[in-house]
Amino acid sequence: MWQVYLSGEIHTDWRDQIISGADQRGLPVTFSSAVTDHEASDAAGDSLGKEASPFWRDHKSAKVNAIRTKTLIEQCDLAIIRFGDKYKQWNAAFDAGYCAALGTPYITLHDADIVHPLKEVDGSAMAWAQTPEQVVELLGYLTLQQ
Amino acid sequence: MWQVYLSGEIHTDWRDQIISGADQRGLPVTFSSAVTDHEASDAAGDSLGKEASPFWRDHKSAKVNAIRTKTLIEQCDLAIIRFGDKYKQWNAAFDAGYCAALGTPYITLHDADIVHPLKEVDGSAMAWAQTPEQVVELLGYLTLQQ
Amino acid sequence: MWQVYLSGEIHTDWRDQIISGADQRGLPVTFSSAVTDHEASDAAGDSLGKEASPFWRDHKSAKVNAIRTKTLIEQCDLAIIRFGDKYKQWNAAFDAGYCAALGTPYITLHDADIVHPLKEVDGSAMAWAQTPEQVVELLGYLTLQQ
Amino acid sequence: MWQVYLSGEIHTDWRDQIISGADQRGLPVTFSSAVTDHEASDAAGDSLGKEASPFWRDHKSAKVNAIRTKTLIEQCDLAIIRFGDKYKQWNAAFDAGYCAALGTPYITLHDADIVHPLKEVDGSAMAWAQTPEQVVELLGYLTLQQ
Amino acid sequence: MWQVYLSGEIHTDWRDQIISGADQRGLPVTFSSAVTDHEASDAAGDSLGKEASPFWRDHKSAKVNAIRTKTLIEQCDLAIIRFGDKYKQWNAAFDAGYCAALGTPYITLHDADIVHPLKEVDGSAMAWAQTPEQVVELLGYLTLQQ
Amino acid sequence: MWQVYLSGEIHTDWRDQIISGADQRGLPVTFSSAVTDHEASDAAGDSLGKEASPFWRDHKSAKVNAIRTKTLIEQCDLAIIRFGDKYKQWNAAFDAGYCAALGTPYITLHDADIVHPLKEVDGSAMAWAQTPEQVVELLGYLTLQQ
Amino acid sequence: MWQVYLSGEIHTDWRDQIISGADQRGLPVTFSSAVTDHEASDAAGDSLGKEASPFWRDHKSAKVNAIRTKTLIEQCDLAIIRFGDKYKQWNAAFDAGYCAALGTPYITLHDADIVHPLKEVDGSAMAWAQTPEQVVELLGYLTLQQ
Amino acid sequence: MWQVYLSGEIHTDWRDQIISGADQRGLPVTFSSAVTDHEASDAAGDSLGKEASPFWRDHKSAKVNAIRTKTLIEQCDLAIIRFGDKYKQWNAAFDAGYCAALGTPYITLHDADIVHPLKEVDGSAMAWAQTPEQVVELLGYLTLQQ
Repeated sequence: MWQVYLSGEIHTDWRDQIISGADQRGLPVTFSSAVTDHEASDAAGDSLGKEASPFWRDHKSAKVNAIRTKTLIEQCDLAIIRFGDKYKQWNAAFDAGYCAALGTPYITLHDADIVHPLKEVDGSAMAWAQTPEQVVELLGYLTLQQ
Repeated sequence: MWQVYLSGEIHTDWRDQIISGADQRGLPVTFSSAVTDHEASDAAGDSLGKEASPFWRDHKSAKVNAIRTKTLIEQCDLAIIRFGDKYKQWNAAFDAGYCAALGTPYITLHDADIVHPLKEVDGSAMAWAQTPEQVVELLGYLTLQQ
Repeated sequence: MWQVYLSGEIHTDWRDQIISGADQRGLPVTFSSAVTDHEASDAAGDSLGKEASPFWRDHKSAKVNAIRTKTLIEQCDLAIIRFGDKYKQWNAAFDAGYCAALGTPYITLHDADIVHPLKEVDGSAMAWAQTPEQVVELLGYLTLQQ
Repeated sequence: MWQVYLSGEIHTDWRDQIISGADQRGLPVTFSSAVTDHEASDAAGDSLGKEASPFWRDHKSAKVNAIRTKTLIEQCDLAIIRFGDKYKQWNAAFDAGYCAALGTPYITLHDADIVHPLKEVDGSAMAWAQTPEQVVELLGYLTLQQ
Repeated sequence: MWQVYLSGEIHTDWRDQIISGADQRGLPVTFSSAVTDHEASDAAGDSLGKEASPFWRDHKSAKVNAIRTKTLIEQCDLAIIRFGDKYKQWNAAFDAGYCAALGTPYITLHDADIVHPLKEVDGSAMAWAQTPEQVVELLGYLTLQQ
Repeated sequence: MWQVYLSGEIHTDWRDQIISGADQRGLPVTFSSAVTDHEASDAAGDSLGKEASPFWRDHKSAKVNAIRTKTLIEQCDLAIIRFGDKYKQWNAAFDAGYCAALGTPYITLHDADIVHPLKEVDGSAMAWAQTPEQVVELLGYLTLQQ
Repeated sequence: MWQVYLSGEIHTDWRDQIISGADQRGLPVTFSSAVTDHEASDAAGDSLGKEASPFWRDHKSAKVNAIRTKTLIEQCDLAIIRFGDKYKQWNAAFDAGYCAALGTPYITLHDADIVHPLKEVDGSAMAWAQTPEQVVELLGYLTLQQ
Repeated sequence: MWQVYLSGEIHTDWRDQIISGADQRGLPVTFSSAVTDHEASDAAGDSLGKEASPFWRDHKSAKVNAIRTKTLIEQCDLAIIRFGDKYKQWNAAFDAGYCAALGTPYITLHDADIVHPLKEVDGSAMAWAQTPEQVVELLGYLTLQQ
């Protein structure tokens, strides 16, 4: 059973496509990811007390979220790191660097038009995919029972 | 002697300000960074043969650059990671994640208006500075001889 | 399934509150901790022979207890470290430092009036909670199935 | 040349006694420690901007201080960890746990009346000394040239 | 249950002999290996887009295959590394070096006539076997229940 | 479930006493050890071909045995290391050093008359027991469910 | 100052070309390698006593050589791994695997006609060079002082 | 410059022979070892206070000595581990196991008549020497400047 961490963009359904694609093929893969509900994620630290400063509210939530993401990334065998066409997405690049330093293999998933700014992130990746279908195809190959 | 790695933005003179500020105060710090000449960096792999595909040209150069950056980051005691107001700067966020996984402390250097998209990167940082002067001030404190 | 280690104060029922709170919500969490029976813990080494010197009796018991605590801390995904209002509780701070060096995330649980002397311990924590209910709330968030 | 980190109490002159004792005997030892000026240490993060909340002021300073202490502890061959008769001193116990997890040997330095509450900290120590002179004596033995 | 990785030659049935031999003896061993279908392996990256350059086609496939092999080697308790009498088989020697650096024990499986060129690879091995039967015999011994 | 490795003397029934003692108390512990049949152990490498030189016969068998012992020691949570009153038993002291370097806790089991020559081995141990019953008692304490 | 390890082929003067090229450019690089005198290397263990069996003579020498090569590879920042057009050169591929597992970057140096059998070795490399001049060029770039 | 740790027997002059042999040949090697004055070593902890129990006196001294030996072993590139014909010498076997777990190469130095009881220790060694001259010869080879 392979553990695959899905990092990055939360505004399209790429996670669902990969999960259902793997499910349809019966692949021996389990998936994990950060909490992908944007509002819940931003409010992750609020239950510990409200903050007056936006910086500290973000800081507190980011650290709570990091308990989860750090643990799941360290447990995974492979990460898929998705860059969409909107927002800064620095957290996705951060996760890629985290994987690279751990020696955990990752595959990037993004369109061709952002190849140049992603060159360092792709340079440490094991593969670059452009569609969720390609990722499912790779997962099928990687987990092939002989 | 502290080894400090300077990562990120290459279009303003923040590196020079930190280096000369530390120099003026006689701090026991040496600095390192990626090759910061943009064109030379993009062409880092060209001496190994030209590539027809832009992806592979970028890939080859990114990997040559990674020999340098990976080595210097692994040798440093502290990284300063700068985000400016232009470009994607995914390599800076990648370096931050790399430091985080290694347990190497880093300080971010950026304006207040990008606090929210940088919350995961700041969440793992040891400090957030807004000016090169603040970084020099911190370096003075950190290397204080008693 | 998350492994959560509960470190610190043994004179109030904070462990029970967290365990039963997690149980009521059906969270995928298992808990571990040191032997929390104070007398049994102080006598942990007595079965190996009585000691004349209080120092060596303590030493022998401390090392027996460390077999258990070290093993459980190294296996856990997350530690909750509780500081009450009595005693020195250096073992709780010791466990926090141990987690920090391992890169294991921990959450502190203490009242606001000891924020200043705990600043180094809180500085390396991923979160500071003031009540067991807040810890249960966080565990619910961290283990959210999407 | 041995690197020795001096952790703990900042209100008596035990550091000076060890340093001058080692100096008088010409021992091949260099010493390091946290910034020991109490006010400067509490204000370590102030240059990055004032905080309204005492918790976040402490937090910011603690993280700046941790850049220094973490780096110096990871570089040392041996730590001396001092517990005095005042204050909570949780940071000293935290440093002891940090050393224990790294496998870095440490020696505790404290009076006999706190042996029991320090049993876990002493249990992972390589030695317990009661006076700075004993520490100097040990350093002389440890660095003996044959 | 022992995890055994089978590396190297894909043109004879040595893997099947070991697996069926272990199966007949009911040994508590599971086996893993690279994708051993030569054509599928060379084409591992093709689903991500065709490459004009043979070097980059090979490169892309090699990295996809490395996701699998690296993960399985890091999970195994023991590797069997087979050198046949044809081809360069540099990947088998690469896997041996990878195991050596990880501290993972490996057994080589090859004929006597290539002892000299394999001396470095054998020098770091825990044993040298000449037949699959010998490997099965060793697995039986290693997993003996007493 | 704790994994306990039993190292050392193979000429008395101390292993059986510990295993049956743990079994009678229903402790959540599994045990492992080297192959304890002396002749089989000395002959561990013979199936790979006979050796003319006694040194190389021993060497070959020692390395085959090390595949097993190294793997089981690295998997265990705790080792019990037994020294009897006969033979050199350097392999037991070797296993103790191996555990010490890994940070794996171990308990020594030996009579009082060899305390002095075992002082380095005991110095890195977490406890010294004199009887198998004491070991079972400790295992009961260490695995206490609260 | 960068430490560069030169691994592989010992029958052409590629090492000299790189060393003198770096020397002429005054690069801050020091080089190391295995003992490259073929006969001396094969005889590395002979001073410990002659062996009747060719396997054990090779084995003894290989392990003596490994003391040197393992130490130098673990100390280097970068390895250059050369494959010529003769011999099996499994030791070069072994060194590449060793570097890969350590996370030490390496550059391969070989002609285009062996790209396919080297695809796994190249797949984990940071660059592929075809001439010693290209390697010197890269070293100049990597060690650029800004 | 190679760091070589000399472990084991303290009743013959093998250390002096190796050190003076290396000195005469001008080898780039520095040597370290435990405190080899038997009485001083047994009394290493006495300056911290006398102990009534022989076990605790030994324990205290063993731990003080371990600060030195552990540090020097972790710093060395190579250990020479000597077994003489007297005493139990479990500390030498302990050091060998410690080196093995760290991946630090070691060479054993002992007569042929104890080959069998040392088979596990020799099995993890990189070489077995019978005389100090052979060790010096190996050091000369290992540090050869080309």
